[in-house]
Amino acid sequence: MFLSNLMPLEKALHIIKDREVIAGIEEVSIIDAYNRVLAEDVKSILNSPGFDNSAMDGYAVKAEDTFGSSQTNPAHLNIVDRIGAGKASHVSLKSGEAVKIATGAPVPEGANAVVMEEYTIEKGNDLEVEYSLTPFENVSPKGEDFKKEDLILKSGKLLRPQDIGIISSSGHEKINVFKKPKIGIITTGNELVMSLSEIKEAKIINSNYFTLKALVESSLAMPELTHCTDEAETVSNQIKKFLKPCDAIITTGGTAISKGDVVVDVVDELGEVLIHGVAIKPGKPFGFGIIDDKPIFMLSGYPVASMVQFDIFVRNFILKMQNIHREPPIFKKTASRKIPSALGRTEYIRAKTDGDVVAPLKIRGSGVIRSMVESDSYILIDENSEGIAKDEECNVLLYDSLKA
Amino acid sequence: MFLSNLMPLEKALHIIKDREVIAGIEEVSIIDAYNRVLAEDVKSILNSPGFDNSAMDGYAVKAEDTFGSSQTNPAHLNIVDRIGAGKASHVSLKSGEAVKIATGAPVPEGANAVVMEEYTIEKGNDLEVEYSLTPFENVSPKGEDFKKEDLILKSGKLLRPQDIGIISSSGHEKINVFKKPKIGIITTGNELVMSLSEIKEAKIINSNYFTLKALVESSLAMPELTHCTDEAETVSNQIKKFLKPCDAIITTGGTAISKGDVVVDVVDELGEVLIHGVAIKPGKPFGFGIIDDKPIFMLSGYPVASMVQFDIFVRNFILKMQNIHREPPIFKKTASRKIPSALGRTEYIRAKTDGDVVAPLKIRGSGVIRSMVESDSYILIDENSEGIAKDEECNVLLYDSLKA
Repeated sequence: MFLSNLMPLEKALHIIKDREVIAGIEEVSIIDAYNRVLAEDVKSILNSPGFDNSAMDGYAVKAEDTFGSSQTNPAHLNIVDRIGAGKASHVSLKSGEAVKIATGAPVPEGANAVVMEEYTIEKGNDLEVEYSLTPFENVSPKGEDFKKEDLILKSGKLLRPQDIGIISSSGHEKINVFKKPKIGIITTGNELVMSLSEIKEAKIINSNYFTLKALVESSLAMPELTHCTDEAETVSNQIKKFLKPCDAIITTGGTAISKGDVVVDVVDELGEVLIHGVAIKPGKPFGFGIIDDKPIFMLSGYPVASMVQFDIFVRNFILKMQNIHREPPIFKKTASRKIPSALGRTEYIRAKTDGDVVAPLKIRGSGVIRSMVESDSYILIDENSEGIAKDEECNVLLYDSLKA
Repeated sequence: MFLSNLMPLEKALHIIKDREVIAGIEEVSIIDAYNRVLAEDVKSILNSPGFDNSAMDGYAVKAEDTFGSSQTNPAHLNIVDRIGAGKASHVSLKSGEAVKIATGAPVPEGANAVVMEEYTIEKGNDLEVEYSLTPFENVSPKGEDFKKEDLILKSGKLLRPQDIGIISSSGHEKINVFKKPKIGIITTGNELVMSLSEIKEAKIINSNYFTLKALVESSLAMPELTHCTDEAETVSNQIKKFLKPCDAIITTGGTAISKGDVVVDVVDELGEVLIHGVAIKPGKPFGFGIIDDKPIFMLSGYPVASMVQFDIFVRNFILKMQNIHREPPIFKKTASRKIPSALGRTEYIRAKTDGDVVAPLKIRGSGVIRSMVESDSYILIDENSEGIAKDEECNVLLYDSLKA
């Protein structure tokens, strides 16, 4: 009923882009916020540091009291207090006085510089200072890192360790982040079994089940998995079951035109099929539909085709649900040999890079998983191109650049 | 007692390299194997596919029966069986016969090619074939992906989705992977509190606690966290508590020379301090020791210094515990302005890249977390260099290239 003529890739991508949604927002503790995406602008609740503090272990003094001091002509000061880390001195320092303080400790009132321990000799309460300080030397001023009400991080930031560090030090314990979408994965196919012990006759192992879970994980989302046989009712019931808890559904198998290829028919019945059949290779029998406002990505049953379709259509959609916007770089590399390509289909040729050279793999079967394992990149060939000549420059997309 | 003269960076890295260990091996189900590192060579238990199978929905035939056929001169065959996905036909096909089969189904005995549905007209049991097939056309041969006993993946591979796909289809349900090391993180410092509500006087928030957890997570390891005050006995007890369950320990704070800087003293008492003080900037007061054969990384209490020390000394060590070997690329970029640097220390200048240009940040304080947040890379300046001139080429290491 469908797949009569193929949709150009650009048009299919456009239709899918129009259906992008954010999966929602949730509050998490900052201790669990690594690799999450910030869903609010974070402003500081405090000054950091909260007070002028010592950048060194040493003595807080008035810089003026040390002017002209040296090893041969030390200044003599009177130690009036000693404070350790986490403590504050309540002394108001006068000329001729010093307070021993630790790194990070507040510089007492009246002091304006800190002399490093190495430049002093302490004898009882007498301190020899063999160094001439400039005002504010070794003092980290209050608010040096950031001030109360400063904008620390903007919404949309994928949180790195240092980002979590600054959020914590700005006084927040919880923050709003974009939800990790829950992605329902339904593999279909009477011929598929889950393990070696179930193999008999025409059965094969359902590798898509395992691969797609990992693909969804590599997109920082949460997979919810099940397998179905090819009966329309079974597939229909499973889709209905996943619609509510999941933010999107991925199916494999049942997207061609023959009898028994039920997935596209079921989606058409439950909702709307917006795409069926795209001018790409491999991966032509790709479908996309909407049921109750939830996107349904219908991937091929062939392992390689489904991986390529995931990379082209699904990965970015899932990342954008978390407000992660990425544009993996396209590298120019030299083709190690001639690559023929048919007009009218955008090709994703599995390839192996070696420096500035890229070699297309010879195996092209949609079922040969080894070709995805032995390659590290796609050579992209435009639908209007008849291929690439040996030593010609071509566009290369590295697998490693795809994962979040 | 220590930190009297600084060790060159290369020597410190060499000492740490000598203490590299593997955290161990464990068996996991392949469904949980994404981003784990394979700890065995994986050989296939079966042929994949296990039988010659159809690459198309169509009809299995003898190619010879279709030689010379075309739309105007179709061959006529007799449909003797029809099989769906996951089923096998037990027919032994004779000349003049056809069996209807689905994609992936076994090609019946006697057949050697499959004609696509699109090139046929089915009328009852009569099949018109409007196409001349070559032998083996549209047949995926048994073992096309891999054969029984083939080496599928080598030990040491960081598993991508396609790798998990091929392992599953080769018949394995569980595999051996390298253990994720458990990393004990002990932050120290009387001045540190865990939240805004505890701030008073000279207290500040313990951002290292949150940052280091994320840094360990970004290295694919499992953090185990605690905070201690500065008393030697407290720190000593905590280290002893973590020694057994953890594969390595990271501390922050207490690595300088002043009183109250207890961590290095405690490690010296419990085991051996191999490094204390390295000629780098920031991060000079770095320590490394061994207690009961477990590595102890003693990082500075200053947030920026501890992050840089993690990047230089700890990250790769943790990755190698999982048998992950990475060499982040060093890029050549043009300095947007002059960068002075002192002889004798390797500098890690926080910087921001923009295409081929790199701008060093002006803020350099070891406590200014904002400098790590606003930068995306380090400019590396050799200990023998006095700095970089404006528009000179310099070596740049991107933060994003560091995480696993």
